[in-house]
Amino acid sequence: MRGVTMGIREDVHQMKMLSPTVAASSIELRNRALEAVAAALREHAAEIFDANARDLEEAKDVAPAVLKRLTFREDKLEDVLAGIRQLIDLPDPTGVHLLDRQLDRGLELHRITVPIGVIGVIFEARPDALVQISALCIKSGNCAILKGGRETAKSNRILFEIINQAVTGAGLPAGMLRQAEVHTEIDELLTCERDVDLLIPRGSNAFVRYIMDHTKIPVMGHADGICHIYVDRDADQSRAIPILLDAKTQYTAACNAVETILLDRAIAADFLPRFAFAMKEAGVVLRGDQEVQDCLKNALREQGETSRAKEKQSAIEIRDLTETGYATEYLTLCASVKLVDGVKEACAHINRFGSHHTDCILTENDLTADYFLQMVDSAGVYRNCSTRFADGFRYGFGAEVGISTSKLHARGPVGLEGLVTYKYQLIGHGQIVGDYASGKSHFHFEDL
Amino acid sequence: MRGVTMGIREDVHQMKMLSPTVAASSIELRNRALEAVAAALREHAAEIFDANARDLEEAKDVAPAVLKRLTFREDKLEDVLAGIRQLIDLPDPTGVHLLDRQLDRGLELHRITVPIGVIGVIFEARPDALVQISALCIKSGNCAILKGGRETAKSNRILFEIINQAVTGAGLPAGMLRQAEVHTEIDELLTCERDVDLLIPRGSNAFVRYIMDHTKIPVMGHADGICHIYVDRDADQSRAIPILLDAKTQYTAACNAVETILLDRAIAADFLPRFAFAMKEAGVVLRGDQEVQDCLKNALREQGETSRAKEKQSAIEIRDLTETGYATEYLTLCASVKLVDGVKEACAHINRFGSHHTDCILTENDLTADYFLQMVDSAGVYRNCSTRFADGFRYGFGAEVGISTSKLHARGPVGLEGLVTYKYQLIGHGQIVGDYASGKSHFHFEDL
Repeated sequence: MRGVTMGIREDVHQMKMLSPTVAASSIELRNRALEAVAAALREHAAEIFDANARDLEEAKDVAPAVLKRLTFREDKLEDVLAGIRQLIDLPDPTGVHLLDRQLDRGLELHRITVPIGVIGVIFEARPDALVQISALCIKSGNCAILKGGRETAKSNRILFEIINQAVTGAGLPAGMLRQAEVHTEIDELLTCERDVDLLIPRGSNAFVRYIMDHTKIPVMGHADGICHIYVDRDADQSRAIPILLDAKTQYTAACNAVETILLDRAIAADFLPRFAFAMKEAGVVLRGDQEVQDCLKNALREQGETSRAKEKQSAIEIRDLTETGYATEYLTLCASVKLVDGVKEACAHINRFGSHHTDCILTENDLTADYFLQMVDSAGVYRNCSTRFADGFRYGFGAEVGISTSKLHARGPVGLEGLVTYKYQLIGHGQIVGDYASGKSHFHFEDL
Repeated sequence: MRGVTMGIREDVHQMKMLSPTVAASSIELRNRALEAVAAALREHAAEIFDANARDLEEAKDVAPAVLKRLTFREDKLEDVLAGIRQLIDLPDPTGVHLLDRQLDRGLELHRITVPIGVIGVIFEARPDALVQISALCIKSGNCAILKGGRETAKSNRILFEIINQAVTGAGLPAGMLRQAEVHTEIDELLTCERDVDLLIPRGSNAFVRYIMDHTKIPVMGHADGICHIYVDRDADQSRAIPILLDAKTQYTAACNAVETILLDRAIAADFLPRFAFAMKEAGVVLRGDQEVQDCLKNALREQGETSRAKEKQSAIEIRDLTETGYATEYLTLCASVKLVDGVKEACAHINRFGSHHTDCILTENDLTADYFLQMVDSAGVYRNCSTRFADGFRYGFGAEVGISTSKLHARGPVGLEGLVTYKYQLIGHGQIVGDYASGKSHFHFEDL
């Protein structure tokens, strides 16, 4: 196979030259290729599960949460097949006319979406991610070079071979997909700025930051996911607890899990004990400054009249903040807590310490909510729901290649739309600029 | 004034904190500010012209083309005022709902355009550029830090003061615009990646490349403008010459001027002498490889029967290509010429040597044209018109901050739309992800 004998650099150069042909393929062909991929995955399910079992055997010492991510069995297969079916049903993201304008008689401008070209995706050890990312690139007419985590190398290899064969069998050009299997190939890939149009790294903060700092290729994604929930004085407190628990504990290792909870001082004495107790019950360690620690102690003391409250009191506490404080992405059963003077201070804190990923306000007050949604400068600004909704599937995009905290191009969960750009076509009949500069001709812009 | 006493770093940090407030300003306020700017520019015209005259006096030794760019008199004032009026009439680029989707009952997702935030624009010595860029940033609700070329320092200063006072007088926050006047401030600005969301450098290739290589801030723009025109076998040859002359000579220093002309071999012997003669008459020096030089010599010899042709012959020639050949952006009355075997080789050459800026095919053949428009991987792909049309004004954008050859975010001439991003708002009523993971709740995506 080509991938084995040639270097990354040559392969991506071939891809770059191939990319206009892939971009010119019809949506019917691309959808047929996706159907072929789905059929082949089902047909070869046993081999895939077998390869995955061997990966899991080697990885048996890792944490249960990680093991779950590495696993690819019937349920994951069903999920990715459902995702492919969703993608097939979505309209072609390319060839969309974003603008059709007559500049003058016989001089027409069109802005039309086209694939980005060659995309490098470096992702964590999750076999289902390989399938989803390939499918998104096929649907959007992009060439892709894929590097998955080494813990699922055997699963990745067979999945890639199945997908690649199905794609070329359906009639798309051979070489539009390529798998990188060796970690050193990443560094080679980072130097291919002439041939790779976009890099999408996923994984640990340190890894993503390394990619961002060591390449001239545009990078889409996020290093940090420091998400906040602000509990406003007008929050429905009974509804707040389940949201906070979901955002912190439903999947702690996710980038959209909450890391810092901001409490309005106006309700802190009332809400903090209940909140801290619920978190304690869920195994969450809270960290905060002296003020919030004192606030909890005082609140517990005042409530300490009943014996039940006394019982609680002994069980809950807020520990000291770590050194990096509010800029920490715990990714574990730990959260920072801070008291703020209402929505204004909450927004200022989030814009200062957050990572512009996803931040939420809990309030029943429309004016306060509007202020928060307007002033917080993040990809996702939420009201009265869990930050864990920040995800391409949950947004109905069919799949996502990642979540972007950059403000350019795509922001938030990135599906098909983030994998296309546009070009301007200008169709004339001999027009020259000199005639417009001299006043002989005049523009009369008219959108068609 | 603040700009005099504080450093760039502090100023852009203030701007960053201010940017959500600027973003929240109403379009009525932003349009009123633009009206105030226009009125103030007209009111203070004499002072502006006076400052500009002093700039020109100091710059009197520069080339006439440069001097023309530095000059700001009544005609340029009228142009920028017309641009501001056009901008006022354009719809608000912010607050546009790109997506409204119900994810489930009572859980609504909105994708809404918002200003990018803090934008740094570093531009050549052109006083009108300062006005246009400020106006685009005001209209789009962005904070901006502006650094213009030093040759028009006096003009820049008074223009900036007039604009800034008008903007704050109209009610927009003081500090949303800032001027940098010292060249060393650019290096300081490049390190402000926490506070500056986007840099737009304009100017020489070397300067733009320097910016791109020395900052972690996303950069939008272009270093090279190596534009091509391919003259196909089915071109209307009489129409080809005026287009080629316009693209090369109408403004040679522009990034959208043509640098390389590709001729279909099928018509080279016929077209080359006429083309070379027309270029010679316009003072353009042609450069090419041995093949194209021989082709011209042979064609002239064969046509050399008539005395008139003999006369021409002595006057025209094609010189040797320079070392960097087809990757050279001449920006002068010089062009590369190359023979190719039809549209396929033309596209391959352009994708290999071009800078993905603007490239054009001259042909009357629809199929050939479609192939070219599809396969050439550039921001602008043109048919039968001059490459010089690649410009925000000529596209009807009112103004442009620059032309992007990047594929991410904005491509080609960048007007208001390139100065906004979007955020996702998710409005819930207590929804948590756990309920969807457990199957208790289900998404039913429905676009509203």
